[in-house]
Amino acid sequence: MEQVRIVIAGPRGRMGREAVHMVMNTERYTLAAVLDHKYEGIMLSELEGFQGYQVPVYSEIEKCLSEANADVLIDLTTPEVGMYHTKTALQHGVRPVVGTTGFSKENLAELAAICEEKELGCIIAPNFAVGAILMMKFSQMAAKFFKDVEILELHHDQKLDAPSGTAVKTAELIAEVRETKKQGHPNEKETIHGARGADYEGMHIHSVRLPGLIAHQQVMFGADGQTLTIRHDSYNRASFMSGVKLAVDTIVNIDSFVYGLENIIE
Amino acid sequence: MEQVRIVIAGPRGRMGREAVHMVMNTERYTLAAVLDHKYEGIMLSELEGFQGYQVPVYSEIEKCLSEANADVLIDLTTPEVGMYHTKTALQHGVRPVVGTTGFSKENLAELAAICEEKELGCIIAPNFAVGAILMMKFSQMAAKFFKDVEILELHHDQKLDAPSGTAVKTAELIAEVRETKKQGHPNEKETIHGARGADYEGMHIHSVRLPGLIAHQQVMFGADGQTLTIRHDSYNRASFMSGVKLAVDTIVNIDSFVYGLENIIE
Amino acid sequence: MEQVRIVIAGPRGRMGREAVHMVMNTERYTLAAVLDHKYEGIMLSELEGFQGYQVPVYSEIEKCLSEANADVLIDLTTPEVGMYHTKTALQHGVRPVVGTTGFSKENLAELAAICEEKELGCIIAPNFAVGAILMMKFSQMAAKFFKDVEILELHHDQKLDAPSGTAVKTAELIAEVRETKKQGHPNEKETIHGARGADYEGMHIHSVRLPGLIAHQQVMFGADGQTLTIRHDSYNRASFMSGVKLAVDTIVNIDSFVYGLENIIE
Amino acid sequence: MEQVRIVIAGPRGRMGREAVHMVMNTERYTLAAVLDHKYEGIMLSELEGFQGYQVPVYSEIEKCLSEANADVLIDLTTPEVGMYHTKTALQHGVRPVVGTTGFSKENLAELAAICEEKELGCIIAPNFAVGAILMMKFSQMAAKFFKDVEILELHHDQKLDAPSGTAVKTAELIAEVRETKKQGHPNEKETIHGARGADYEGMHIHSVRLPGLIAHQQVMFGADGQTLTIRHDSYNRASFMSGVKLAVDTIVNIDSFVYGLENIIE
Repeated sequence: MEQVRIVIAGPRGRMGREAVHMVMNTERYTLAAVLDHKYEGIMLSELEGFQGYQVPVYSEIEKCLSEANADVLIDLTTPEVGMYHTKTALQHGVRPVVGTTGFSKENLAELAAICEEKELGCIIAPNFAVGAILMMKFSQMAAKFFKDVEILELHHDQKLDAPSGTAVKTAELIAEVRETKKQGHPNEKETIHGARGADYEGMHIHSVRLPGLIAHQQVMFGADGQTLTIRHDSYNRASFMSGVKLAVDTIVNIDSFVYGLENIIE
Repeated sequence: MEQVRIVIAGPRGRMGREAVHMVMNTERYTLAAVLDHKYEGIMLSELEGFQGYQVPVYSEIEKCLSEANADVLIDLTTPEVGMYHTKTALQHGVRPVVGTTGFSKENLAELAAICEEKELGCIIAPNFAVGAILMMKFSQMAAKFFKDVEILELHHDQKLDAPSGTAVKTAELIAEVRETKKQGHPNEKETIHGARGADYEGMHIHSVRLPGLIAHQQVMFGADGQTLTIRHDSYNRASFMSGVKLAVDTIVNIDSFVYGLENIIE
Repeated sequence: MEQVRIVIAGPRGRMGREAVHMVMNTERYTLAAVLDHKYEGIMLSELEGFQGYQVPVYSEIEKCLSEANADVLIDLTTPEVGMYHTKTALQHGVRPVVGTTGFSKENLAELAAICEEKELGCIIAPNFAVGAILMMKFSQMAAKFFKDVEILELHHDQKLDAPSGTAVKTAELIAEVRETKKQGHPNEKETIHGARGADYEGMHIHSVRLPGLIAHQQVMFGADGQTLTIRHDSYNRASFMSGVKLAVDTIVNIDSFVYGLENIIE
Repeated sequence: MEQVRIVIAGPRGRMGREAVHMVMNTERYTLAAVLDHKYEGIMLSELEGFQGYQVPVYSEIEKCLSEANADVLIDLTTPEVGMYHTKTALQHGVRPVVGTTGFSKENLAELAAICEEKELGCIIAPNFAVGAILMMKFSQMAAKFFKDVEILELHHDQKLDAPSGTAVKTAELIAEVRETKKQGHPNEKETIHGARGADYEGMHIHSVRLPGLIAHQQVMFGADGQTLTIRHDSYNRASFMSGVKLAVDTIVNIDSFVYGLENIIE
């Protein structure tokens, strides 16, 4: 298989660090360069945690892309910087894979237009956890056949908000395809307030918080005599890397703009 | 093994029916007679659903116990009738196993006194589901070591009250041994009301209702880096019969009064 | 909504009985007649378990279909009888929904040809459990992204064969899309024989048998830092009825031959 | 509450490191000193990962215990060193908490004798995971009431042996209280070899291996109409620290020898 030459922007962030190790440890990938605004001109191996990685570091994207001969830019910086990087990459004929939730509709439209004009692939992904994306996709599919659904999400007890963003996103996706239904017995009553959880268009969402837990979600569907359960357990940040890989492997073969990993998963 | 001769009161009720079949199908038991206020003098086989069961039916307990030479009375009637049956059985030297939540403290004290005087065993059980009793017992034991606990109970969507009685009972048992602790992050907030479930002395209880489900409960404990989960699934009424058997097999060997199956389970 | 007029063949079988009740209790359906080889000319209400159901019983399908003015035939008989019924229904312009695993390839080809000629819908379903079908479908989809999978199936301890038919079917579906991979550590060893379960093209299948259990299956996928689990719990035969409904509601709107419910679920 | 003064031996090992952080972060504990054969006379803060910890480092236990005025020694070294440390601590009136699976029966007998003579508490713990110990304890208790049990253990796919040590230990503990029973249908047959898992005195053990998983075990009991499940999930090494704490808090109050944390958990 031909090597995919990759540039990573943001190599010292938490996701960036994982991405650097992933690319270095994947045979079909070559880490051509990294972009780091602070360290022009050194080798990556000089930075802590990257021992032995003989990869040039650039602080300017123009120079970096001119010299690196890259196929793909993996951008794990901030929305502001990321937008500039993404546009510049496309100008240089490099396909961007960008992990961000921060791009506006206008940003997305602008990038889609450039992709179309340049006939280049580009993926903007708010979430790289393939398992979580599949869980949401399957939940939406199942909701066409099972009108009764409850969502249980379980996290460590340092989490501030309940329900989790993923639980709400899952409920939204289900609501798109499901006629609103008030679940449970019409006369049910809570003898202790809150027992039946949060109500989202008649679906119920329950948030468990315990020390020890990491990030877990279980979507349960019920019908006469059967239940169907879809569960995702996320144990650490490494879980995002399979999504990054999927994005890279997909983007080298397509010539259009994609928003959300769910759209390259069928 | 010597046969245990048993009389069942209330053979046509839902629990009674199961008990009749259980006794008939257990080798070490003999169904000596049944007590049914409506059918004096017939054979059980004449009633629907008891084909081939050659067992005499009595409507009067005095006559029944005089003739049946029984070791144990299994009473699955109502609290009022049951109290009379229990006392009469003890007068006849027959050990009672009674399934009821309806006896008052005075009833229980009276029966305990008779047992002591007669040196006879007697078990009054509000719940015969051995698995549910173990779940509650283990949960109480675990709560000494894990201060963080959440209870999830799952039932069919025809159930009216939330949380379930078993969930509340479990929380009460845990509260007996656990210092009250407000769980979750001190600043946690619900973006949809009810997400964090019912609060019982700082523990959280979540009630799931879905068609298809029967009766399930899961008690989850968390601490740094680990979780411990105890779960009971009840699929049908047959689940109570192992508790009835346990009560019968225990009571023939003890000479005292017992309230609650948890007290013969160590 | 317009009423769907239905004929049920095999009303006294276990599935047939459920189907009769389901149709009688579904507002948009009318039970036009039943086909029962033993009871020509009576009313269904005369048979045990069907009190109050004023529905004519026929023993001959020709006569039945001529008089019943039906849209759909639900056939829950045997493969031999079922094949004859299905063909006859299509001749009468009645759409068949047939629950059977017993039709040969030739049977299926013959029926497909008739459907095409007549421009009539017909569904032959080896399995009506929508939840189980979705579990298999989702598992196949997930296997494209997760190469590591283990299947756990759990049944009551009266089941003779291990693994279950559904587990093997699931593994086959996964194998269609997954490169064969020998899972687990290359040097793993069993200190007690059989611990790692059955090996199906490198996937492992584990069969749990316990009294109390009914029919459950859990498909687990793992990748760096995450797992995805898809589980189906089947508690009783009522679970098949949502599949029968889905088949009926679909077939009235299509004009072609369908084998397997998975093909009308997207 | 009075402070417990603690010495930790082996502070640079994986468990030792966790223990140092745990003691430093527990209000009622004081880290009086650490024992490290390589670093006599420095401060712990000079070693990587212990920034700001102003705690003296000793390489000789005699000198350390003479100067540190400790109540408890937590030893997380090797069996050879640990045995010497443990005996020396007892001679100095310091109570040892030792994490090891490597002591021989003779070692244990010798230590028990010293404890008795000195009237000092000492805990030797092969396993500090309180949740795992409770799981085993509850499983043994449940096995008295449920004769049918299957054990499912799930680990990452780098694990070499199957079943896991904990699964075998659990089966042994259950076997102590359970009449041997060949589970499953007497005529059951495996259509793919190994499906029914490992057979341990009639119990079945199933080993799942998947990337992403960490260390999990589920013990399932079944009886008519019900199942009882006890599950432990271990996510990281921090999970051992609650066991270390429990041992420390117990040992300061007892004057005898204890082998295995299960014996201080009732």
